[in-house]
Amino acid sequence: MNTVAASEEFIKNAGEMQQERCSSSDRPLDPGGLLTHDAERSAARLGCAAVDFPVAVVLPAGGSGERMGLPTPKQFCTILNRPLISYTIQAFERLSWIVTVVVVVATENHDLMLNIVRKFNHTKVKVVHGGTTRHRSIFNGLQAFSNTTDSLTPKPKVVIIHDAVRPFVEEDLLLKITLAAKEQGCSEFDFEFGTECLHLALQYCGTNAKLIEGPPTLWKVTYKRDLAAAEAIIKETLSMSACIIAGAEAEAVELAKTLQKNLNMMETDVISCAKENNTEYLSKTRNFIHISMSGSSFSGVPEMVKRFEDIGHARLYPLVVVWVQLNMTKQSVDSQKTDKLTAFLGLASEVKQGNVLLYGIEIDHSKVPEQWERSVERLTQITVALIRDRNAALTGQLLHA
Amino acid sequence: MNTVAASEEFIKNAGEMQQERCSSSDRPLDPGGLLTHDAERSAARLGCAAVDFPVAVVLPAGGSGERMGLPTPKQFCTILNRPLISYTIQAFERLSWIVTVVVVVATENHDLMLNIVRKFNHTKVKVVHGGTTRHRSIFNGLQAFSNTTDSLTPKPKVVIIHDAVRPFVEEDLLLKITLAAKEQGCSEFDFEFGTECLHLALQYCGTNAKLIEGPPTLWKVTYKRDLAAAEAIIKETLSMSACIIAGAEAEAVELAKTLQKNLNMMETDVISCAKENNTEYLSKTRNFIHISMSGSSFSGVPEMVKRFEDIGHARLYPLVVVWVQLNMTKQSVDSQKTDKLTAFLGLASEVKQGNVLLYGIEIDHSKVPEQWERSVERLTQITVALIRDRNAALTGQLLHA
Repeated sequence: MNTVAASEEFIKNAGEMQQERCSSSDRPLDPGGLLTHDAERSAARLGCAAVDFPVAVVLPAGGSGERMGLPTPKQFCTILNRPLISYTIQAFERLSWIVTVVVVVATENHDLMLNIVRKFNHTKVKVVHGGTTRHRSIFNGLQAFSNTTDSLTPKPKVVIIHDAVRPFVEEDLLLKITLAAKEQGCSEFDFEFGTECLHLALQYCGTNAKLIEGPPTLWKVTYKRDLAAAEAIIKETLSMSACIIAGAEAEAVELAKTLQKNLNMMETDVISCAKENNTEYLSKTRNFIHISMSGSSFSGVPEMVKRFEDIGHARLYPLVVVWVQLNMTKQSVDSQKTDKLTAFLGLASEVKQGNVLLYGIEIDHSKVPEQWERSVERLTQITVALIRDRNAALTGQLLHA
Repeated sequence: MNTVAASEEFIKNAGEMQQERCSSSDRPLDPGGLLTHDAERSAARLGCAAVDFPVAVVLPAGGSGERMGLPTPKQFCTILNRPLISYTIQAFERLSWIVTVVVVVATENHDLMLNIVRKFNHTKVKVVHGGTTRHRSIFNGLQAFSNTTDSLTPKPKVVIIHDAVRPFVEEDLLLKITLAAKEQGCSEFDFEFGTECLHLALQYCGTNAKLIEGPPTLWKVTYKRDLAAAEAIIKETLSMSACIIAGAEAEAVELAKTLQKNLNMMETDVISCAKENNTEYLSKTRNFIHISMSGSSFSGVPEMVKRFEDIGHARLYPLVVVWVQLNMTKQSVDSQKTDKLTAFLGLASEVKQGNVLLYGIEIDHSKVPEQWERSVERLTQITVALIRDRNAALTGQLLHA
């Protein structure tokens, strides 16, 4: 390989004062790669050349996570049922110009790591064993490129070394680092001393090292509280859009439009059904609001879930489906109520196996404008709460707006 | 005054390596002072003298919070409907040996701050105006003690200067700082230069400054993600215990006992009613599970809420009341169902005004052991989810286990 670059929150090394001056927000543009990526467009936006050479990543993930106050090493702690390391892998894997992601783990976590790779379908990952120190582990990771004929590990021009517990790394920074590394050509450096890659590079390589300031979004998950923060960021990002499926009946379409207006903090589409030609709408969001008229069964929901399965849409993030039942007449006696509750609970627990969280909300139509407005407002609030929280314990509940 | 001490996460100044070696968890013992405090007992635990002289605190809270990426300065951002600054104030106010808390705010936030003091009934607080720099603000805060005859601000022997956005400060550290400050007697120092109090003290006061290592729990809310982390810590602490009110009927008592066994991650008490002589149980937790037999109305709930009001129990943290209805016979037709839903929603929205979050869960009794077990397991999961999330949008819902 030509060059080794390290992506870190360099501000840490440059001291607290540096941090005081830096960016105004810690919200990554696209944590976990929810948006579509295009290498050339990113390069154009940054005003730099696109990366047209093979780039690889080494993720040292051998830490024991003592500081978390948890028995599980932090890279294997889960957020929305997915280990942190998988989010970091995904942040690289989504980029077309990254060809290989080498994950270095302790021997005892080898099988666990292979299971994660399989379960979340990581296709660019190669797992290697760590050494006794962090730097020995990085060395082992780099070795993966030197003595192999494996098609997964072609000789890269640049290797990025990245902490496994910094999940919110963005393409812009990686582009900058990669191009700077290519240009500077810092060659290999001492693996035995020190703790921080950049620190080492600066100390031993002098002018060959270049400081690229990392954004605050590149923070490291260190403490248990950081897991909560990471979860909040991921949930917030997942809640940024929704697709409302309204069917054809006038009252449902009307409700869909009002709901769309109320959900003004989200980007929403209203479509009439979840059929084949709507795959585009279905695949661009993780939240679905399905409006049905009373009397209709839950049909529509299993078909939609089947389509998600076909495109692997719930593989990385749990999808939320809010099934809204619009009652046009006040039903004081609903003799099938108990059966309906049981059936809905059953359906929800079935689709939960496929990482789809299904919730129900009933709303009674009212001709009194104020009353109707209040109900729709409550429908909005409950819908937002369900989408934001993604709480698995509340699936299958039939709520009331 | 004799001495000025500063409480900060000193490890920051001592560098990353120091942090690597420190404590294994970032969970404060008692964030926000939920537990009972006793100055002498704390001192005895620490093996040091109790503080028998007046101590005051200055909280510089003039920051603009640019880095949060939010329009509101971070000290005024809310967690569970309460501004961050109120949590920090409470962390000091709960200690009997702290006599005054001086909060220094920008002139434009003076009224806002007074409202917070009133709303959350902070009795030891004095609000003063900030200066153009952080150090000028601290100076103004200290001035409050020099020229006043106010009974709220007696001349303290020690003044602790503490960041308003470090809410999880614990008594142990404050005791250590206070006693060290009293012993060392570092006197006043230059307010004009530098950014960190300790840094200044070390630089200008030499041997008079003493480094007391802060725990990782003393972290500073800097970014928006830190608010999510703080919220998670507070919610986790609030969810550590619950009180189950079972009434006298055998089936309800039976269910209460099973629920208590299932809720093994919480400390739980089972009591028979929420009457006067049970104030002790009611005031030691923020979560209540009220079991009723079907047919009984919600009565019991309003009386309980009234008692909370009387003792101001929901003033600082929202209380959760989970009303569990145990149906002994399968009710296929419940003609009053809609009226019941409406009444429950009404009651919930009424008690929400008093910071009480009311949720309902119905559970159908079953003679089939497996089925009953499954229902109780679901009841447990839903109850835990409601208590942990404290989601205001879902109050008044009647869920089904």
